[in-house]
Amino acid sequence: MRVALRSFLHLSKAFSSGLVTNPARGLCGAAMRLVQFHHRHGGEGGIRVGVEQGEGPGVVDLAAFDPSMPSTVKGLLELGDRGLECAQRALLSGRCVLNRSDIQLLSPILAPEKVVCVGMNYRDHCLEQNAPIPSEPIIFNKFPNVITGPYDDIILPAESQEVDWEVELAFVIGRSGKHIKKEDALSYVAGFTVANDVSARDWQMKRNGKQWLLGKTFDTFCPLGPALVTTDAVTEPHNLGIRCLVNGDVVQSSNTDQMIFKTEHIIAWVSQFVTLTPGDVFLTGTPPGVGVFRKPPVYLKKGDVVECQIDQIGSIVNRVV
Amino acid sequence: MRVALRSFLHLSKAFSSGLVTNPARGLCGAAMRLVQFHHRHGGEGGIRVGVEQGEGPGVVDLAAFDPSMPSTVKGLLELGDRGLECAQRALLSGRCVLNRSDIQLLSPILAPEKVVCVGMNYRDHCLEQNAPIPSEPIIFNKFPNVITGPYDDIILPAESQEVDWEVELAFVIGRSGKHIKKEDALSYVAGFTVANDVSARDWQMKRNGKQWLLGKTFDTFCPLGPALVTTDAVTEPHNLGIRCLVNGDVVQSSNTDQMIFKTEHIIAWVSQFVTLTPGDVFLTGTPPGVGVFRKPPVYLKKGDVVECQIDQIGSIVNRVV
Repeated sequence: MRVALRSFLHLSKAFSSGLVTNPARGLCGAAMRLVQFHHRHGGEGGIRVGVEQGEGPGVVDLAAFDPSMPSTVKGLLELGDRGLECAQRALLSGRCVLNRSDIQLLSPILAPEKVVCVGMNYRDHCLEQNAPIPSEPIIFNKFPNVITGPYDDIILPAESQEVDWEVELAFVIGRSGKHIKKEDALSYVAGFTVANDVSARDWQMKRNGKQWLLGKTFDTFCPLGPALVTTDAVTEPHNLGIRCLVNGDVVQSSNTDQMIFKTEHIIAWVSQFVTLTPGDVFLTGTPPGVGVFRKPPVYLKKGDVVECQIDQIGSIVNRVV
Repeated sequence: MRVALRSFLHLSKAFSSGLVTNPARGLCGAAMRLVQFHHRHGGEGGIRVGVEQGEGPGVVDLAAFDPSMPSTVKGLLELGDRGLECAQRALLSGRCVLNRSDIQLLSPILAPEKVVCVGMNYRDHCLEQNAPIPSEPIIFNKFPNVITGPYDDIILPAESQEVDWEVELAFVIGRSGKHIKKEDALSYVAGFTVANDVSARDWQMKRNGKQWLLGKTFDTFCPLGPALVTTDAVTEPHNLGIRCLVNGDVVQSSNTDQMIFKTEHIIAWVSQFVTLTPGDVFLTGTPPGVGVFRKPPVYLKKGDVVECQIDQIGSIVNRVV
């Protein structure tokens, strides 16, 4: 799994040019940042798939490059290698480029079949709450329609007084599988993105028979994005700085090397139970620094701005309204 | 909500003829039994929507009657009244009738956005386990891809030794809503069907941090069907005999009047948290007689046949393999 420094530089270069595929990493993908967007000024309506031009200002409009391509990243993943190859050709073409200021980024995945979450998956987060390190992953979920865009508002529900932040590394499944072996698991990952596992602690911890679902699944409780960064573009997903800022103050700061169950383990574990399918979103747990374990506890209020950052992947910024 | 005997007879008659709409019941639907099916002998492939001809041997092929109609019941519900009216016209036409022996019934809903479940929702089921009557609904869920057909096999997973049955009245959402009031809630229901909330008790009760999700969501753990019986065709959903038989022996036998939180209450409750959408499936809880609370406990084994019956709605029969 580890990629040497040379590969890192190679991939970094590839990332700008969009040139390289790495067959060792499973899905035949180049290093790409896939997004979904709306045109900001009307024009052609509906969701569209884009490919970010490295650090540049442009986003390639995939359906403008090839009208046979689907209008969602999930649809693109369902095409398998053919879809990713076309996205790469579009990026290399230098054509059909839109300016970022003319588009509104959406979550890179909408309407997945599943949003799977892992609880208590950072060593330092377990220490923070004096909880034992789990010996097995603890799996819960959100309903898929709670996903919201990388810069969209988090709606504070009247029904909760204890809404909290949780920055998390998310990954997205690229192809279907059941009973996936750990050693094959990375080849089922399309890429990584940033999530905020927004949580109503009153509902999660004290009500609903202590089943976490309701506290995790108020509408807008899963900001996600900004891009689906393909596996080839992430040198070591389990060694990335991960931070959450509330109104500019750092409230969470850790590293994904603190994850107890890594991506491969989570995929092997969950696929024992249920068939995974392209577009499934996994949230891999949060580091320490959440509001509920502060003394005294701190919760989100209207007007707060929450930023979740993961090195190499990106940053999402959401205002609480 | 209560429908007098006269209405009952009227509806029963309507049910055979498919003639009547009842504007008081919200969605402008006639009394119909909607199904999804495959042709058994090849022919036109894929999922198709059908309307059962009362007690008769025939099922009307909706897309044969009107090729502009969608190929799934969920798609039909998304059309609103227009879809249900077309289904009613198809039924009345007497045309495009297929023989039941030529089709394979699927679940009437596949790939909903959500499968929402209510735990501990029968008074007699709470008594059975010496549990207090909940003061609020306890909500959990299954992933949508665990739905399987009314006569399909339940796959016993190697990972569980304690797989149990749970007959449940299910309802399906017909139109989108959030913060739905109890008094309006029935107008959001497209109809009712029968579910088996198959449960791996070891995973539900002893593992996964006591979060129920994994024990409830092994593939095939939600047989559903055979028909979506529209609201107008069910005289009193909260006064129906409900039974489960294992290998012909009655193991659960109760009445939906034992439900603590009725359909209206559940819809109002869950829609506080999350937007409901056409096709969402709700399982409303199970009566006493499940295997785990027997002394000694009894679990399903390969070769068992489980039948779940609800008066007026139908019966599903699934072999354990």
